[in-house]
Amino acid sequence: MNFCSQCGDKVRFAIPEGDDRQRYLCDACGTIHYQNPRIVAGTLPVSGSKVLLCKRAISPRKGYWTLPAGYMENAESTQQAASRETREEACAEVELANLYTLIDLPHINQVYMIFRAELVGGFSAGPESLEVALFEEHEIPWDELAFMTIERTLKHFYADRPRNEFPLHISMVTPEDRERYFGSA
Amino acid sequence: MNFCSQCGDKVRFAIPEGDDRQRYLCDACGTIHYQNPRIVAGTLPVSGSKVLLCKRAISPRKGYWTLPAGYMENAESTQQAASRETREEACAEVELANLYTLIDLPHINQVYMIFRAELVGGFSAGPESLEVALFEEHEIPWDELAFMTIERTLKHFYADRPRNEFPLHISMVTPEDRERYFGSA
Repeated sequence: MNFCSQCGDKVRFAIPEGDDRQRYLCDACGTIHYQNPRIVAGTLPVSGSKVLLCKRAISPRKGYWTLPAGYMENAESTQQAASRETREEACAEVELANLYTLIDLPHINQVYMIFRAELVGGFSAGPESLEVALFEEHEIPWDELAFMTIERTLKHFYADRPRNEFPLHISMVTPEDRERYFGSA
Repeated sequence: MNFCSQCGDKVRFAIPEGDDRQRYLCDACGTIHYQNPRIVAGTLPVSGSKVLLCKRAISPRKGYWTLPAGYMENAESTQQAASRETREEACAEVELANLYTLIDLPHINQVYMIFRAELVGGFSAGPESLEVALFEEHEIPWDELAFMTIERTLKHFYADRPRNEFPLHISMVTPEDRERYFGSA
């Protein structure tokens, strides 16, 4: 951020009076530009014993497999966001079950919220997907998953499925986890 | 938003190519300024049979009672945000239990996430609170609560407490709910 989105003047990065962390400040109009984490909402769509995955057609991680998920938009609920992303990426309708994983990624200011869901009807690749397919557990392309959040959600699912109990799992991905996952590149 | 925070040029509000909703666009540098909901993280601090509430020292709803909660910051987790807000508003340390209410407010682009928590040690009013106190159920100032999200979280708590089971409650506050709560003002 270089300029004030209200008045167009240059901003500086400093701690406002009475605050305890640096913000982008506009001395001209007095606006403090707060920046906050974004929610990535999505689903784990299940059909019988199979799970739906989407092969990404866009960066980052183009060509890797993911669960349908994306940034929550203004003026929608978390559940509406999860359903909308599933519709957009997999052309699929789902019936949402419980919130299943909540994963904080503080180093990139994201909070993942993945809902379990039951696939209703068909599916096909939306504009952001190269391919959409159903996978049995032994078919999951573990080495070709797009993000650690996706791997973790799938691991929880297969660990929980034998008991048929799917409690909410809250966890964090640290920069060290991320480096392990992506390698040092 | 009037100006591009990257280059300082004027922005316009229109649907970008390949998108389906209006964004602030900069024709000069090509930046699309996405805007997304913010998370309000907080706790329901419990001590024995009592619940901790804070009387707000700041707008909005100055003088009304609330649970300690506030905007999640970049570079922290949802649980860290909930604990930090409790420390700032009530000078209190807590041990977090489960995520208890997740309440979407799509008309004001907020997502409330309140964790149940056990109060550890003392408390006092932080700079954003006029007063902090513990309440038995019959002492809760129902007509002087700051927000509908707080009322709803407390109602869930007292409904769940007899069974000693506190599952996550996901719900939405609509503009109609809000009008009922605040009156037409």
